[in-house]
Amino acid sequence: MTSRDRGAAAVARDLARIVGDVHVREPVPAELLQDATETRGVRGEALAAVFPADAEETAAVVRWAGAQGVPVVPRGGGTGYSGGAVPDAGSIVLATDRLTGPPTIVPEAWRGTFGAGTVTADLQRRCLEAGLFFAPNPGSAESCRIGGNVATNAGGPRSFRHGSTRAWLSGLEVVLPGGELVRLGGDARKSVETLDLLGLLCGSEGTLGVITEVTLRLQPAPEVALPVLAVYPDRDTGLAAIAAAMACGVVPTALEFLDGGALRAAAQTFPGGLPEAAAFAVIAEALGPADIAALEAAALAEALADDALKVVRPDTRARVEALWAWRDGVSLAVVAARGGKLSEDVVVPAERLGEALAAVDRLGAEHGVPVTSWGHAGDGILHATVLVDRNDAAALAGARDAAHAMLGIAADLGGALSGEHGIGSVKLAGAAALDPTVLATQRAVKDALDPRGTMNPGRKLPPA
Amino acid sequence: MTSRDRGAAAVARDLARIVGDVHVREPVPAELLQDATETRGVRGEALAAVFPADAEETAAVVRWAGAQGVPVVPRGGGTGYSGGAVPDAGSIVLATDRLTGPPTIVPEAWRGTFGAGTVTADLQRRCLEAGLFFAPNPGSAESCRIGGNVATNAGGPRSFRHGSTRAWLSGLEVVLPGGELVRLGGDARKSVETLDLLGLLCGSEGTLGVITEVTLRLQPAPEVALPVLAVYPDRDTGLAAIAAAMACGVVPTALEFLDGGALRAAAQTFPGGLPEAAAFAVIAEALGPADIAALEAAALAEALADDALKVVRPDTRARVEALWAWRDGVSLAVVAARGGKLSEDVVVPAERLGEALAAVDRLGAEHGVPVTSWGHAGDGILHATVLVDRNDAAALAGARDAAHAMLGIAADLGGALSGEHGIGSVKLAGAAALDPTVLATQRAVKDALDPRGTMNPGRKLPPA
Repeated sequence: MTSRDRGAAAVARDLARIVGDVHVREPVPAELLQDATETRGVRGEALAAVFPADAEETAAVVRWAGAQGVPVVPRGGGTGYSGGAVPDAGSIVLATDRLTGPPTIVPEAWRGTFGAGTVTADLQRRCLEAGLFFAPNPGSAESCRIGGNVATNAGGPRSFRHGSTRAWLSGLEVVLPGGELVRLGGDARKSVETLDLLGLLCGSEGTLGVITEVTLRLQPAPEVALPVLAVYPDRDTGLAAIAAAMACGVVPTALEFLDGGALRAAAQTFPGGLPEAAAFAVIAEALGPADIAALEAAALAEALADDALKVVRPDTRARVEALWAWRDGVSLAVVAARGGKLSEDVVVPAERLGEALAAVDRLGAEHGVPVTSWGHAGDGILHATVLVDRNDAAALAGARDAAHAMLGIAADLGGALSGEHGIGSVKLAGAAALDPTVLATQRAVKDALDPRGTMNPGRKLPPA
Repeated sequence: MTSRDRGAAAVARDLARIVGDVHVREPVPAELLQDATETRGVRGEALAAVFPADAEETAAVVRWAGAQGVPVVPRGGGTGYSGGAVPDAGSIVLATDRLTGPPTIVPEAWRGTFGAGTVTADLQRRCLEAGLFFAPNPGSAESCRIGGNVATNAGGPRSFRHGSTRAWLSGLEVVLPGGELVRLGGDARKSVETLDLLGLLCGSEGTLGVITEVTLRLQPAPEVALPVLAVYPDRDTGLAAIAAAMACGVVPTALEFLDGGALRAAAQTFPGGLPEAAAFAVIAEALGPADIAALEAAALAEALADDALKVVRPDTRARVEALWAWRDGVSLAVVAARGGKLSEDVVVPAERLGEALAAVDRLGAEHGVPVTSWGHAGDGILHATVLVDRNDAAALAGARDAAHAMLGIAADLGGALSGEHGIGSVKLAGAAALDPTVLATQRAVKDALDPRGTMNPGRKLPPA
């Protein structure tokens, strides 16, 4: 008799023996059964949610689940855009909230080790206090957790220069699908002593193990962050400005864009206001020691100035933070327009961003749904978005069709289905169309490391 | 009857049917049976060497080998330090020399695609001609090939700021162990659409497939490279200078050191000469637009100046190149001292570099062999080296013992066995002492992707 038959109450009792009564939730509260895909109507079910205190308890939960054949759905901040942490009925949610032991920071070696449950913004603040910097900054930094950032290889605007989470990772403590607690990598900034198992875990969306601790390669804290925002009367002018920024010799920390719809949705909250004619925005940023960042920002501002309606260069820390807070709020502003949205996370070769934006518009018109895009121009990542009233079932179905069609843009233009958000459950149909040999290869890896198939099954990898 | 029984001549005939007579070598010339471990007496044997013209011929060779049960040893420039490309008797060498089709460079998207056989320095020059930059620069750049750089996740001095080869990789064309030709990643700068198979191949030392084409994420070409070299009267003063450079707020492209022995071996060829009392050297570098690099170099020079015997700041392109050519020549200068050397590639947490250097000296004294170290201070990588007369069998055996003992430094100080050179064959004994769960996990991945075990067997992964 498996746990699935014995029912949720029995499962909760078993888990309570490992972590204690008060660290098991059964029934599972709604907020643990969803992630950011809730805006597109995705919700899950689970037998119980469990909050282990440390790596050892995490391993014990995974061993218990393996023995019982109960799927484990690891959960960080629950801010994902792909449903990777939304459980299916019959599984348990393994929440990493309590894996927040005190960090170990070694300023002179630019290194820090943090519990997987550490909220990313807290981690960033701890680093800054030690004179160090962790660059990846997903928009959800105030609520996502570093373990989830690793599990999704999260990026954000500053990953253009500084790379996604993987580039900052030197070590992990992980509970493997069989329940073994293991360290991959460690304090060494570089290692090729094994196959890149560290990289394999990063971005695996919980399908290869539960991350319990993270060791990061950090950099010196920047003295200043100097973003430059410029707005343009139309898309083509904006794209030309992006090309000019790419050609100016500086590698900006971020090179972002907002298309017309996203800009309109967010313009009213822009600090100081924006010209009414603004139909495309570009944000570039320089960051580092004050004198160096000033030179870089000047070069970027010059590159962006041609044909701009307005160029904004915030010059105090408060104004800089206000600009980025505004940028982080674009996603919510777009949601507010209709009450819901479906955002894809399409990547195209950077030189084809204009073609991709035109294709998004075309698909919106074909499906009769409002669309917009924003994202990371330098990396060719567009958050191609369909606006929708999520309480209107018919509209939601149409929006899903349109969003799925967006994935075709990646295939048509030689890009990728996801640059940062992952596959989770909502892009599985798109991923099923990838090269069958690639799919078989990743399936072979998954089956080798999780032969029982209990580690976040049905996510990331399309069914074999 | 397998090919191994049929003998080399029959194997060569089979291979000639795939690639043509003139592209098979049997018997195999000595230079295809060794790599840089020749300085420690490592030499191999093989049935034949085959030079496929393109990816399709490469796949056909791998399929033939799989069907015959013949091990395939992929070979780039043969510059490795770990014996990864040195074949065992009964295998074939698959040389990538001819995989050098014309590159595709897209300057506006900072991207380039190159055949795996492209010599790294040629690739770097092609990038510069297009206004772009590929930062990883192993000392062997004039003879290694980009496919080998990917297969080993090669680094070099500039990887401190810019990361090893993996950080620059967006796509690969690979022949998998079963002979399937597949693309992993591609032109998109970022992708999380699958498990990180791209990263898994990178650094796998030919054990998971043969790389035939490489797509790179590049950066704008720097206007200048501004190295700063400083020499010190003793190690402690040098280590203090490294700490000062790490604390100055700038991320140098390189932060190198040379210990006393390495500096003495190379000092006589240093352009302009060095003070006799110099017993430790540090090199830092800034690189980028001229005005920005000048600020960074000034900050680095200031950090390195305290207690330095001499600070050298080359100010013309020719002098900069001469300094780096001198640095690249350190390895050969050390070889010249006795005729041979055994270099390990130990990584320690960066703050423990001093302890590691002391441990190298201690091991040298214990084993009665001359030792020295140089390497990448910022990354905590020391090329811990035993000098030896390679024609003296007894001395070579003692040197091997001492070199093997160096690997214990990584374990003692919480580092890694190899930062860039890989495990190959010469570090297998060291790797066998890694965490058994980690070893079992990487073995499971290898067996899943190469069930016949014909792709560079007996390298990288210790025997199960």
